[in-house]
Amino acid sequence: MKDFWYYVPTRINFGPSCFQYLIETVRRWGSKPLLVYGGGSIKKNGAYDAVVERLKEAGIDYAELGGVEPNPRYESVLEGNEICRKEKCDILLPIGGASAIDCAKSIAATAGYEGEPWDIISKKVPVGKVLPIITVPTLAAAGSEMSTSSVISRMDINMKAGYSSPDMRPRASFLNPEFTYTMPRRQTAAGVADAISHVMESYFSNVPEAYLQTKFGEALFDTLFHYGQIAYEEPENYEARSNIMWACCWAINGLTVKGNPVGWSMHKLEHELSAYYDVTHGIGLAIIMPAWLTWMLTEENAYRYLGYLKASFGIDSSGMDKMEAARLAITKTKEYFKLLDLPLSLREIGVEEKLLPVMAHEAAVIGKDYFDKAFRVLDEKSALEIYRLAYE
Amino acid sequence: MKDFWYYVPTRINFGPSCFQYLIETVRRWGSKPLLVYGGGSIKKNGAYDAVVERLKEAGIDYAELGGVEPNPRYESVLEGNEICRKEKCDILLPIGGASAIDCAKSIAATAGYEGEPWDIISKKVPVGKVLPIITVPTLAAAGSEMSTSSVISRMDINMKAGYSSPDMRPRASFLNPEFTYTMPRRQTAAGVADAISHVMESYFSNVPEAYLQTKFGEALFDTLFHYGQIAYEEPENYEARSNIMWACCWAINGLTVKGNPVGWSMHKLEHELSAYYDVTHGIGLAIIMPAWLTWMLTEENAYRYLGYLKASFGIDSSGMDKMEAARLAITKTKEYFKLLDLPLSLREIGVEEKLLPVMAHEAAVIGKDYFDKAFRVLDEKSALEIYRLAYE
Repeated sequence: MKDFWYYVPTRINFGPSCFQYLIETVRRWGSKPLLVYGGGSIKKNGAYDAVVERLKEAGIDYAELGGVEPNPRYESVLEGNEICRKEKCDILLPIGGASAIDCAKSIAATAGYEGEPWDIISKKVPVGKVLPIITVPTLAAAGSEMSTSSVISRMDINMKAGYSSPDMRPRASFLNPEFTYTMPRRQTAAGVADAISHVMESYFSNVPEAYLQTKFGEALFDTLFHYGQIAYEEPENYEARSNIMWACCWAINGLTVKGNPVGWSMHKLEHELSAYYDVTHGIGLAIIMPAWLTWMLTEENAYRYLGYLKASFGIDSSGMDKMEAARLAITKTKEYFKLLDLPLSLREIGVEEKLLPVMAHEAAVIGKDYFDKAFRVLDEKSALEIYRLAYE
Repeated sequence: MKDFWYYVPTRINFGPSCFQYLIETVRRWGSKPLLVYGGGSIKKNGAYDAVVERLKEAGIDYAELGGVEPNPRYESVLEGNEICRKEKCDILLPIGGASAIDCAKSIAATAGYEGEPWDIISKKVPVGKVLPIITVPTLAAAGSEMSTSSVISRMDINMKAGYSSPDMRPRASFLNPEFTYTMPRRQTAAGVADAISHVMESYFSNVPEAYLQTKFGEALFDTLFHYGQIAYEEPENYEARSNIMWACCWAINGLTVKGNPVGWSMHKLEHELSAYYDVTHGIGLAIIMPAWLTWMLTEENAYRYLGYLKASFGIDSSGMDKMEAARLAITKTKEYFKLLDLPLSLREIGVEEKLLPVMAHEAAVIGKDYFDKAFRVLDEKSALEIYRLAYE
């Protein structure tokens, strides 16, 4: 196990009764929240009312930024900054998916910055003062409600920039699994794929002595694969929704990574996709995952695939040829995503073949640090090989 | 999954390099620490020097309370309070096992209280202001370095009082697994048994829909049983020591309990033992555990034993009679503790048979809340049955 520090001071309030703590939490961290959200879904699933009614009842003034896009845009961050200044908001309160939360995190991290906010988002300038963030997630996917990172897109320069800071970790999050009942089926599937990819990036590492982290990873695989299908088939199954929602947090909050470092290369490959095509993050990942697993496999690292096979699909590989078992794990992964009706190739979602080398080049440049420390070291050539595997 | 809140704001600094963060952490939370420790072991394993040298170098003044007993006594808490007042200490810095840490927590929780500190420890008066606590554990066992609880003994009235408060959770802990190399073998074994009992109390619950918590529990069982034996046989095996040390934190910090509530009845049975006999907590638990598992087993709850059997001993029970498999899990547990040379019966450690009804009565009175919410509801009669099973 490598040396590490672990610090996750987000207070999670979980379950339909969680909003009993909302007002004391808002007052603990600020006085006037800026609500940040996307389209109309939060007004249908009850999340908006759950927050606004309590704020009104408590006499707490607030401002609003609606219409934040999936793969949130830089423009929304700028707009949020402006509202924050004008309305003197001192706390961010995103309601919705990772898009709303990531946008709010970037508003919080740039609201007090005098220069061009993109400096911070693109890591040219380190994150300074961050306004406190309290989240109300209504999707189970990226786990942004307990994580330190934010991803913002600029379509004008085809850039999707991810960055993180301990201060961008939400102070508190309010997780009501019932709000996820109305997630579109496609989003339920994409969210599960996203969380699975988070576990996968750290599970496929070269630190076998980080045994506990590996076992925690297997607990998460087991839970996500098991309940992902149930939630897809029975959207109002509370057991499935609550387990997925809680698992999504642990898939990214550091539990499986700390002491077990590895470059998250799959995400770098996906970020290129979303930068060009505005693909839903989880869908991009579901397509790249089997290709990535295929390219990464060697005789030496096959043992990781066997643990994954057992935890995710309940298949004991004892007695099997290990490479055969590893390939079965990849086939099973594809079959699972097919079961959730996710697209299985880049071609299928309309990616142009001629763009693959461009994305491979950019991924290798922007993601060099991640590629160098990946499960198997990647470069532009191998990135292209993975994109080609994912294309067919 | 039941509604819950989860909040664990302890910053863990892990590995031999962790002390690089010590001074900034002390300064973040206070100005003059009170070091709290037991006998001479921390002066041999390097922990005392690691702290004191850095404090001196940084010019930070400190006071000391040494000689804290295993099963820390109330007298040590009183002594700590006095030093705190006289020396104007504003931060507690225990170095050692859970005894030192629990003692420091109780000093922190009572230093500012005008009345009799026992009022707070015995829960007559709620915990008020708590001084910040930073810990340097040198044993892997109780996980007090990331937990909210403290257990203090009064031998004059045969009371062992456990209580907890979110404010008693350490602000930061510095975990260097190398410090545990010199743990006596008996303590290594007892520490592993203690952590296993923490996982067991929450694993054997009646909330099967808290699936993720169950899987996390299995990850911890797997890690603790696997590395417990290795650490016992090879005290300087870093892989084993680091995994155990990290697992001990997660066994008690809320991960397996939140959303999965159950009364921790095994601990109530053990606390009676230590109150009368000053038994090492983990040893008492190792003796009571198989008896507790035996008494708890029914046709309906046997499935829990099968998950435990698989995670802890790698035995797949498919094809076996479920009650037979459950009983095998109990036998295996006993065999494991025997392998670690732990005593296997109350008789063996000198408990007088005539005291069993007295302990059963007291456990049932003091532990009523826990007994009522246990995996199977317990009362005085059943407590006595468990003690008798553990006696033989």
